[in-house]
Parts: sequence; structure tokens; C-alpha cells
Amino acid sequence: MDILVSPPRSQLRVKRPWKYKGLGEDGISLGLAEIDFDVPEPVKKAMVDAVLKEEFHYTSLEGLQEFLQAVVDRWERFNHVSIGTENVLPTVGAMNGIWLASRVLLKPRDEVIVVTPTYGPILRNFASSGARVIICPSCSEDYHLDLEEIENKISKRTKMIAICNPNNPTGVVYTRNELEYLADLARKNKIYVFSDELYDLFTYDGRKHVSMFSLLGMDGLAIIVNGLTKAYGLSGLRIGYVVADKKIIDKMREINTLIIIHPNVLGQKAAAFALNECDEWMRCLISHCEKMRNLLCDALDRLEGVSCPRSEGTFFAFPNIYGIFNDDIEAARILEREYKLRVSAGSGYGKGGENHLRLNFATTEPIIRESIKRFKRFFRSFKEAR
Amino acid sequence: MDILVSPPRSQLRVKRPWKYKGLGEDGISLGLAEIDFDVPEPVKKAMVDAVLKEEFHYTSLEGLQEFLQAVVDRWERFNHVSIGTENVLPTVGAMNGIWLASRVLLKPRDEVIVVTPTYGPILRNFASSGARVIICPSCSEDYHLDLEEIENKISKRTKMIAICNPNNPTGVVYTRNELEYLADLARKNKIYVFSDELYDLFTYDGRKHVSMFSLLGMDGLAIIVNGLTKAYGLSGLRIGYVVADKKIIDKMREINTLIIIHPNVLGQKAAAFALNECDEWMRCLISHCEKMRNLLCDALDRLEGVSCPRSEGTFFAFPNIYGIFNDDIEAARILEREYKLRVSAGSGYGKGGENHLRLNFATTEPIIRESIKRFKRFFRSFKEAR
Repeated sequence: MDILVSPPRSQLRVKRPWKYKGLGEDGISLGLAEIDFDVPEPVKKAMVDAVLKEEFHYTSLEGLQEFLQAVVDRWERFNHVSIGTENVLPTVGAMNGIWLASRVLLKPRDEVIVVTPTYGPILRNFASSGARVIICPSCSEDYHLDLEEIENKISKRTKMIAICNPNNPTGVVYTRNELEYLADLARKNKIYVFSDELYDLFTYDGRKHVSMFSLLGMDGLAIIVNGLTKAYGLSGLRIGYVVADKKIIDKMREINTLIIIHPNVLGQKAAAFALNECDEWMRCLISHCEKMRNLLCDALDRLEGVSCPRSEGTFFAFPNIYGIFNDDIEAARILEREYKLRVSAGSGYGKGGENHLRLNFATTEPIIRESIKRFKRFFRSFKEAR
Repeated sequence: MDILVSPPRSQLRVKRPWKYKGLGEDGISLGLAEIDFDVPEPVKKAMVDAVLKEEFHYTSLEGLQEFLQAVVDRWERFNHVSIGTENVLPTVGAMNGIWLASRVLLKPRDEVIVVTPTYGPILRNFASSGARVIICPSCSEDYHLDLEEIENKISKRTKMIAICNPNNPTGVVYTRNELEYLADLARKNKIYVFSDELYDLFTYDGRKHVSMFSLLGMDGLAIIVNGLTKAYGLSGLRIGYVVADKKIIDKMREINTLIIIHPNVLGQKAAAFALNECDEWMRCLISHCEKMRNLLCDALDRLEGVSCPRSEGTFFAFPNIYGIFNDDIEAARILEREYKLRVSAGSGYGKGGENHLRLNFATTEPIIRESIKRFKRFFRSFKEAR
């Protein structure tokens, strides 16, 4: 498994400046959603070739053809869904896609039901569009969709339902059954479904991710956002994409052209190469993440007062720490200040996230083991204080 | 002058796919505002180093510190203006800066006076913000600012005046006197001045560009947009920046964070390096462009019915062709279809642009000479038809 390379721990602060920003030499960051592994060597080689050949000048507004085709092929191969290049819009990271969805499809006074916990910027972006954000927390016991509650919240003004699947931060992978039910609601009420599927390849225990776009009759109603930069370690290249109906893609492109012309070409090149040529590397990464999940979730779950079932997907553990400490923001602060362990506070992910922490386990085994030790010391200090 | 390298003509179509798109083997493109010269070798080398060292992961929302500092230093060196890194926002090309200015500073029902001809997206972006765009054509004889007309158009609703200096497409470089007068109007009426200064280094015959930001009392009112990607041939990396008051920069960053997080890091790296290390290369390019300007403008100006005074700056010639053909869009079409010479129709740049063509002369001497030949053949066909 040596195709998965991680820089020495001492180098991580240099290599991931934002993830480790402000942490000292012995700091560990399970915070920001970046993997701690090097970009696959062949991707770097392809980027060097592109630089030397200067293959990074203006491209067409539709995007680099090889990038569009790589997305189409990847959807065929991994998601078993047939799409065309006209269904794909390259974006400046997934964020750009979230923003476009909120601006192209929502008007002020429209309502959008957002299932929480979810990726924070979905909440912020949709709220800033002027639309009314209706929060719908997931089921409290297992974080799957509370379909009854979603149905209750649908009104005449409802224009969109927004989910994140696999869910960042809870790690839940929605089942085909629950997604079919959601699709049914969407079709009946003519509501768009926005689905952040950034972690679609990261599913465990044999689970399969089902894309909202693949469900019957949903190709006109589903807007899928994905990114290349997280899974392949290409975060700073800022490349993502939207998959949706051609009409929606055309509208989004029209707006994006006014904002950025098009995403950078070298990033599209690198992303195309990564999508086409790194399946084996990706399988190694996923299999490694599954092991790290077992290690981390099981260790945390064994602590009295902490509940941390194994994540079904993503590369996040999402322990409920209410049994030991009832303020996740303060807990994250103490963990970083006193135990040099950076994690994300669950409150940042909307209702249902409070009392939880999000820990990114896409890192090496020694770092996971050291993180567990530090978390246990934090845990013990509260047990003893009682 | 061999630090200025151009790919063989046969390679240009491959190297500049968007500039040459749809043109056959013998096609020449003086259309899109890309230079036909290779990116400076040291910039490519720096990019390769950055790729191999993986220096392209998430950076801070403020931007890469070395990029911000490079902009500050460049302003000190070339523009003789002291700014701080807090006055700089990295953007996804200049377009992103234009869009942010239109969204952060304009509200529906505000009025913005746009001096035309100007870079087309300024008109489109400002109009799409919902603000009322008040067109103010330049003086018809020399394309300098019609200051009296600008003053007449100022109302209580006027929030901003938008200029492009050096002017794309007319090639005019506004004098300190006219800019001082404009600044005076802005200060008196508390109006922002948006200034697209992408071509600030490209001034000829000893002229000096004066930045609106450098004028007394304008550091709170001027919003400057610039880009790295055109002058250094880095178009597809999509890096530009805004210079403005810290409060404006902070608001723009807040919005941009929701749209794109931050521009790609490898582009910021490459741009920082280009700004810091390529002054000599840039001087060669500017000096070469001045020669090409002489060649092209003088040749066109000699044609009866064509008026093409030497451009004061930018890398565009902007001949008035009314004396031979009264439809610039059709003229551009004929030139491309029958003479395989792509140019931009002046109408795309707003009122005052009609009856003109824009020709990008940032290319090699053989291409300029061949373009002149083709233009003359086009010219003659109309003379003969009369």
C-alpha cells in the first residue's frame, strides 16, 4: 500500500499550511477536510508536463473537454449513471457550485429545506441568497433523513431540499430507500433536490452511494455538487463540478462567466488526470480510511459518556460528547489549547451538530493513535474533575 | 531580446486554443487579449518546483502572503504608490474583481456612470447588479475623458464612475490632469471610482500610468482591478487582484469566500513569482509591443478612409474604419471568413466603439506584417467595389 504516501509529521505543518495554521510543532490537526497524503505522483507528473507545455491558457467557457469527459467517464464507472458533458459545469471548488445553486434556483421569499447537520457553507450560502432557510434536523438516533418531518415542512413556497450525502459531518450514507422516498416528494411537489456528494467514493462496509441524479425522473430536479480537490489532495487547485440538467447548467455557466470566466485550466487538467488515472490510488485511500475509521470510532465509542458509532462514509468521525462535556465549541478549544489536537466543533454544522465534534481521519495510523491518546487524556481530565 | 519567445506559428493554435478556436491552419488571431509569447521560463520553473513540493494546498482566506507582498512591492516599484497587504484581495482573474465591485458597492436603483468604450464585461456586470448604468462616451476626437459630460451625468443617485485606464479598447492613457479632475468630482460628490488598470505597465512614448488609487484622498474611494494573467501570459491560471480600502477589501473577501473560498494557490504562487522576478522580461515585452504598435497603427492609418492614431498604451490598435465600411461586426466577420484574420468588433465595447475594430498587437513581427497584408487586401476589395 505504499502508493499512499504521507509527508513526515514534522513536514505536515509546511505542506498543509491552512490545516495546521497556528498549531505548534507537536500539534495535530483533524480539523480541516484535507487528507494528509501526498497527491498521487502521476498527477504531479501530469501537472509538470502541462506546465512545461504551457497547457494552461484560456479554454472554452464550457470547460476543458478532457475534464468534462473525465467526469462523464467517472460517473459511468463509479456511480453507474450515464450523463453527458452538457450536464457538467466545472466550478472553482464545490463552494462555487453551492453558491450557483443558491443563486440560480432560489429567489427571495422561496423556501429551501436544509437537512442538518450539514456542511456549514450550504446554510450560509442559501441564507445569503435571500431565500428562507427551513432547518430540518436528521433523526436524532442515527442521523438518517427524517422523511416525515421533511414532508411536514414542504409548503407552496418550497423550491428546494438540500442534503449532503454521504453526510459531512455525520458520516451517514443515505440508503436507496430513503432517497427514493425523498425523490418521490420532490417529483410530486416539483421541488429541486440539491445534493452535496463530495464524499461519494468514501463509503464503508460494502455500502454503495446512490446519487440523487440517478433516480427515476430526477435528472431535471437534482443538482449535484462534487469536488476533486478533497479526495485527491488537490484542495488548493480549486476545482469542482456541478451535475444537473443542461438548462440549469447553461444558466449557471452564464452567471459564472460574469464572475470568474472559467476555473483555472491547470486545475482542470490535473483533475481530469486524477479522475482518469488514479482509481487504484483511490481504492487504497478508501480502504485505509475504513481502517482508520474502525480504529478511531471504536476507541472513542468505548469511552463512557462518548457515543461514536462507525461512520458509514466520508472521512469523519462524529462523536457525541454530551456525556462528558456539554459545550462542543469549548471542548474543541480545550482540545486544541491543552492537548494540541485540533478538531471541528459540531455546532458549526447546524442543528443536531451541537454536542458533537468532527474528526478527520484521512491521515496516518500513528497520527490517529496519537490523537486517540490525547482525546483520552482530555476525557480523563473531565472524569477526574467530577 | 531573445528572452521573449514565441511558439512557431503552426503551434499557436495548439498553445492558445481559445484565441484560435475555429480558425484554420493559416488563421491569425488578433482577437482575444492574450499575448502570443511563451510564459517566462523562470515562471514555469517556479511552477514546476511548486508542483513537486506540493505547495498548492488550501491557503488563508486573505490569500498567499507572498502573493500579497509581491503586489505591494510591485505597486511601490512600478506605480510608486504605497499600499499594504490589507489593501489587496486576490481574485479569480480581473473578472472576479469587476463582479465583486458591482455587487459590494452597488445596490439596485443606484446609478453608475460607465465611460465607454470600455471592456465589455464591465458594462454587463454592472448592469446585471440591478444598478442603473449611465453610459458616458469618451470625447469623440481623442477618446480621452469627456469630463464635462461626466459632471453633467452625476445625480444624487450616482454611486460610482467606472473607467478603464489605460483604456481597453481605445488604447488611451488618461493624463494626470484629467484624472485629478475626475478625482475632484468623486471627492466632492462622495462617489466611488472603479478603475480597470489591467494594462497599467503598457504605456508608450514615455507616458506614465497614474493610478486612481494614488490620487489625494482617493484611497477610500478608488477600487482598482488588475490581473496578472494577461501581461505574463498566464491567462488560464485565473489570477487577478483588487486594490482598495481595507473595509471594501474585507467586504469583498467575505462575499468571495462564499463563492469560491479563495483563488487557486498554484496561480497565486506563479503570479507572485512573475511579479517579483520578471521585470526585465516585462520591459522587453513592452518595448516590443511599442514597436509593433508603430508598425500596425502607422500602416493602418496610411489607408485612405481608415483612421488609426498610435495607441498611447495597452496592446490594442483601434482603427476607425467608417471611411471604408460602416458595420464593424460585419467587417470583423468578413476579415475572419475571407482573410483568415480574427479581430474584435468595436461595438462590443459600448457606445463610441462602433465603426472600429480592436487588434491585439502583442504578437510577433511576422504575424503583424502578415496581418497588415491581409487587412490591406480586405481594404482594397472595398475600394475596388466602389
